[in-house]
Amino acid sequence: MADPSRSMAAPAVILLSGGLDSATAAAVARSQGFALYAISYDYGQRHRVELEAARRVGESLGVLGHVTVPIDLRAFGSSALTADIGVPKDRSPDAMGEGIPITYVPARNTVFLSLALAYAEVHGAADLFIGVNAVDYSGYPDCRPEFIAAFEQMANLATKASVEGSLRFKIHTPLVELSKADIIRTGTRLGVDYGLPRSCYDPDSSGAACGHCDSCTLRLKGFAEAGLTDPAPYQS
Amino acid sequence: MADPSRSMAAPAVILLSGGLDSATAAAVARSQGFALYAISYDYGQRHRVELEAARRVGESLGVLGHVTVPIDLRAFGSSALTADIGVPKDRSPDAMGEGIPITYVPARNTVFLSLALAYAEVHGAADLFIGVNAVDYSGYPDCRPEFIAAFEQMANLATKASVEGSLRFKIHTPLVELSKADIIRTGTRLGVDYGLPRSCYDPDSSGAACGHCDSCTLRLKGFAEAGLTDPAPYQS
Repeated sequence: MADPSRSMAAPAVILLSGGLDSATAAAVARSQGFALYAISYDYGQRHRVELEAARRVGESLGVLGHVTVPIDLRAFGSSALTADIGVPKDRSPDAMGEGIPITYVPARNTVFLSLALAYAEVHGAADLFIGVNAVDYSGYPDCRPEFIAAFEQMANLATKASVEGSLRFKIHTPLVELSKADIIRTGTRLGVDYGLPRSCYDPDSSGAACGHCDSCTLRLKGFAEAGLTDPAPYQS
Repeated sequence: MADPSRSMAAPAVILLSGGLDSATAAAVARSQGFALYAISYDYGQRHRVELEAARRVGESLGVLGHVTVPIDLRAFGSSALTADIGVPKDRSPDAMGEGIPITYVPARNTVFLSLALAYAEVHGAADLFIGVNAVDYSGYPDCRPEFIAAFEQMANLATKASVEGSLRFKIHTPLVELSKADIIRTGTRLGVDYGLPRSCYDPDSSGAACGHCDSCTLRLKGFAEAGLTDPAPYQS
């Protein structure tokens, strides 16, 4: 997966979920000249097809390394993403509700960014990229810009590399002001193969998306608004 | 392990390593009236006897719950605590060196506190206790008060409970100004059984401490300065 011509580029860590947003954030990071190290999390999610997608997305972007960290949050509590409760279907984006979604996982991005920080320090990477965006941060507190800023400040007090002065960590959120359609336009311009990332909450055994869960609804609406066709497989 | 008479007390999460410091921090939390939920980490450390010690310490303190989270930081890099490199022996505390010790693990307390935050949110616990102290924070950046303060600020922007206003997180560091002897005096006053916690970097198969690694040296010096005898087993 390593492209030797990129090995002198500054390293950056990208949090790759296997979904469309993080694939786009990774493409933005690459377009800025960073050499990418990807990190993914196996947190007992039902949609394990995302982890395979993350791997393929990383390969397509020529990452220099990719770790998948097993981290079982189910010991702590439940969530629609990890527990066996129903996935809402065919809700309009407006009906996805006010407040924090049932798919909220306690402290998820805090845990994910903390592990990414450790990975970044090991690789001497001052730059971390995460695909949080306007669609998410209406609902998830740990997707908001003020959370990201506070995490960055904490990170710069947390590590040997930052305290000794060799690294000044920056958490990049290149999608933070973008709508789903804007994200898809950006990624398309950067050559992202949107046939690879998957984020359906209820895929079939082949990995084909349901087309009706909140994630599929937002994705399909984004492609429609961008005037593009989603190349990912859907259940017929 | 639950003591029903404590079940109406405010819950708190204690990070229990199995060592002397966290056992003392837990006793302080209990003395302040908190009902304790313990969290420990299996991060591939060589001294796995610490995990058994953490379990026994938790039981002795009547914790209402105890989770041990497997989190393999070895995928990221190495450290004396996890890799197969030599453990320094018979160094005087002064000779343990300036700067950050070789036992540094990238972003360790950031990762540990992040998981503790998730556990706290699930249990409705606003209070987290961690046994960082003056002995540690001379060397480890993620034991310093400024790191703890930054983590607390980030935590209050990170979760559903803090953003919706039901929890205001506080990270308690009751040992932060204490020497090892002061910690031992405090715990002894609170009835801690120091025969339970273990933190030797090089125990034998029975769990007996080596008496010569940095951790043993600091511990034995602390007991000597406190005018007390360490009840833990040492290799003869």
